[in-house]
Amino acid sequence: MSTSTDSPVPHFTTALTGPLLLLERQILDRQSAIESWFRSQWRRSPAPFYASVDLRNSGYKVAPVDTNLFPAGFNNLNPAFDALSIQALQQAVEHLGAPVDRIVIVPESHTRNLFYLENLAVLQRLLERAGFAVRLGSLLPELKEETVIPLPSGASARLAPLVRNGRRVMVGDFDPDFVLLNNDLSSGTPALIEDIEQMLRPAPKLGWANRLKSVHFSFYQGVAREFAALLGIDPWFIDPMFRNCGAIDFMKREGQSCLERNVEELLEAITHKYAEYSVQCRPFVMVKADAGTYGMGVMSAHSVAEVVELNRKQRTKMSTTKEGQKVSKVIIQEGVYTHETWGEGNAVAEPVVYMIDHNVVGGFYRVHTERSSSENLNAPGMRFEPLAFEECCITPDPAQGPDAHLNRFYTYGVIGRLALLAAARESQSVA
Amino acid sequence: MSTSTDSPVPHFTTALTGPLLLLERQILDRQSAIESWFRSQWRRSPAPFYASVDLRNSGYKVAPVDTNLFPAGFNNLNPAFDALSIQALQQAVEHLGAPVDRIVIVPESHTRNLFYLENLAVLQRLLERAGFAVRLGSLLPELKEETVIPLPSGASARLAPLVRNGRRVMVGDFDPDFVLLNNDLSSGTPALIEDIEQMLRPAPKLGWANRLKSVHFSFYQGVAREFAALLGIDPWFIDPMFRNCGAIDFMKREGQSCLERNVEELLEAITHKYAEYSVQCRPFVMVKADAGTYGMGVMSAHSVAEVVELNRKQRTKMSTTKEGQKVSKVIIQEGVYTHETWGEGNAVAEPVVYMIDHNVVGGFYRVHTERSSSENLNAPGMRFEPLAFEECCITPDPAQGPDAHLNRFYTYGVIGRLALLAAARESQSVA
Repeated sequence: MSTSTDSPVPHFTTALTGPLLLLERQILDRQSAIESWFRSQWRRSPAPFYASVDLRNSGYKVAPVDTNLFPAGFNNLNPAFDALSIQALQQAVEHLGAPVDRIVIVPESHTRNLFYLENLAVLQRLLERAGFAVRLGSLLPELKEETVIPLPSGASARLAPLVRNGRRVMVGDFDPDFVLLNNDLSSGTPALIEDIEQMLRPAPKLGWANRLKSVHFSFYQGVAREFAALLGIDPWFIDPMFRNCGAIDFMKREGQSCLERNVEELLEAITHKYAEYSVQCRPFVMVKADAGTYGMGVMSAHSVAEVVELNRKQRTKMSTTKEGQKVSKVIIQEGVYTHETWGEGNAVAEPVVYMIDHNVVGGFYRVHTERSSSENLNAPGMRFEPLAFEECCITPDPAQGPDAHLNRFYTYGVIGRLALLAAARESQSVA
Repeated sequence: MSTSTDSPVPHFTTALTGPLLLLERQILDRQSAIESWFRSQWRRSPAPFYASVDLRNSGYKVAPVDTNLFPAGFNNLNPAFDALSIQALQQAVEHLGAPVDRIVIVPESHTRNLFYLENLAVLQRLLERAGFAVRLGSLLPELKEETVIPLPSGASARLAPLVRNGRRVMVGDFDPDFVLLNNDLSSGTPALIEDIEQMLRPAPKLGWANRLKSVHFSFYQGVAREFAALLGIDPWFIDPMFRNCGAIDFMKREGQSCLERNVEELLEAITHKYAEYSVQCRPFVMVKADAGTYGMGVMSAHSVAEVVELNRKQRTKMSTTKEGQKVSKVIIQEGVYTHETWGEGNAVAEPVVYMIDHNVVGGFYRVHTERSSSENLNAPGMRFEPLAFEECCITPDPAQGPDAHLNRFYTYGVIGRLALLAAARESQSVA
């Protein structure tokens, strides 16, 4: 399938594509070694049920910046590859190891976000076409009965209350064999789903109330080191450096020295790497809530001064994340420029890769137009235009150049799977 | 992906589509029950590595007429769904249960058939893109060194001699972990691959030297009965009736009475069924070599007289099959009209469904311009135009009519998998 434009893949606006082309060439040339390595890794560390990974491609570096184990956004994928998701879902359920016919998806509770509800409708329909009976079982306390919400796409989301019945959860008289979380449990594990006897994936221990980005990226560091050794490259080309602080209170200005020291050290480390590879960009870092998602509690800084001089509004923004969770731990991550742009306005485009089990099933670009980024600067879950990958990520063609769409998407699929593998090891560590 | 014509799916030329639409509707309505049933079946009887199934669709009946466990024709599938095959191949290899990085495909030995060589090139490339190192290891005794055969598509087939090294087979110094047969072993298992320590699939016991169509269709009968019970339909709608004879010599006219009696009884049984369902067609049977492929040793008969009055040429044609194998056993199968046609000349079109592991990955129509709807389209030297299925077979849409392309292909995928399941049980019975 093609989109209606002549140029369905974002352009690079930087001349610094040499290292990227080299990396992509190395990945293409070593494809069977890479896949062999992945196969051996999945035998040791089974992949999570599903995941999405946000990437940044600066031309000198391709790196994951966030790994979501409760992915939304399935509505942004290219429907031409639905079959790939359907087949992968069948495999993922098969890997649960027990018969499954009925599935309840437990969604996020923000029922007014139509984009999210479109995601739910697509995920439900993919699972149905994979041959399962599926219901959406909401945790929302005010939802008392089944509610059908019509959606702009023409689909609808049929939300019903999830109810507890002994050691099982049900939706009406629908008794699932398997409960699939599409809720990242930012506020902890609800009593409703605690200790249920049904299979429950991903494990609630992987919810954001328990998970730390810094832990994930520690695992990623190990994965990136091994993968870089396989290719004989500097792991920095695929790994964002980071530091973390464990006891921050933005409002009370506690933990400020840890933050300042780490920002300074990280900026120095980036400067050093930029010099090593002649990168002509100004180093910056991202400061993020260590537990959290939805782009809340996030800021960028090009200097230590920027984290010293936080005004009250910035402090407030940094101090809470989704569902009012307080931020006390932060990760300071190497900022990776986005040098892919899209359209006449040169909107910034960031790739997101989707995986089901260990299969890459597609992805899309978050295209941030100027308008939406300025209007929604402080908004949680900022507005973006999705641009589905026009090709899937598992059909590389070594006969074409490393920057051919098929091959660039293959590279994205490889980096996405490295983050997936980090999450798999992370899951094992808490199991 | 669409083909260049407005009407990419063959037309029905019969008014007898009522029973078919009913069957397709029932299959759509019971999709999750059907998929649940398949899941439980694959847990008991693992699917063969790959298979293709020839179907006939008469409008009153959709039935498999041949199941090939060494499928060629991968070059006829829609390249838009390569990713589906790639993902399914990864899964099929994973199900072998031991690490595999290097694969040798053992092809048929007819190296001058460019269509077949295109199939090999596509199969090899799919496996390579799935992340394996792949070589073609030929059994052809006269092939002494690696030979690269350029193909009309622009691809090429790189054939090299398969050599024995102790209890292993190799291609040059390429030592595979897994040997994939794409050769149906019509002449028996070559000594070269006997008792090798490498994994070998499909099992040589499933080669045509050991396999009988009548055994396969006995297993299919059982599968069709169970599936029909699930849907509450007459199994006849999906099952071609058959008889078989064990000691025929067409040249010496031995076994003639068995053949005549079975043709007569089968024609009577078909007449009975046609009356029951008001089918306004003339019953016919197909007489085929019970062991064999490639449409050799095949004839159709509308009356007993036609098998009594075989002339010398017909007897010769019936008496041998591929690689000069003598026919002594025959299967007499209910003839199922092909009422799908294609193009302005109303060429007859018969669907072929492809499966890898238990996944349906696509299919194509064999479109033949000169034969009638009751003749076998897979005749020796027969030229057909392949017409790839424009959609894949695993994305049904209950909101559309049962004859919508997505849904018709889903039905074909279901019937194809019923034959696959029969082959899975057949494999277990010889294991």
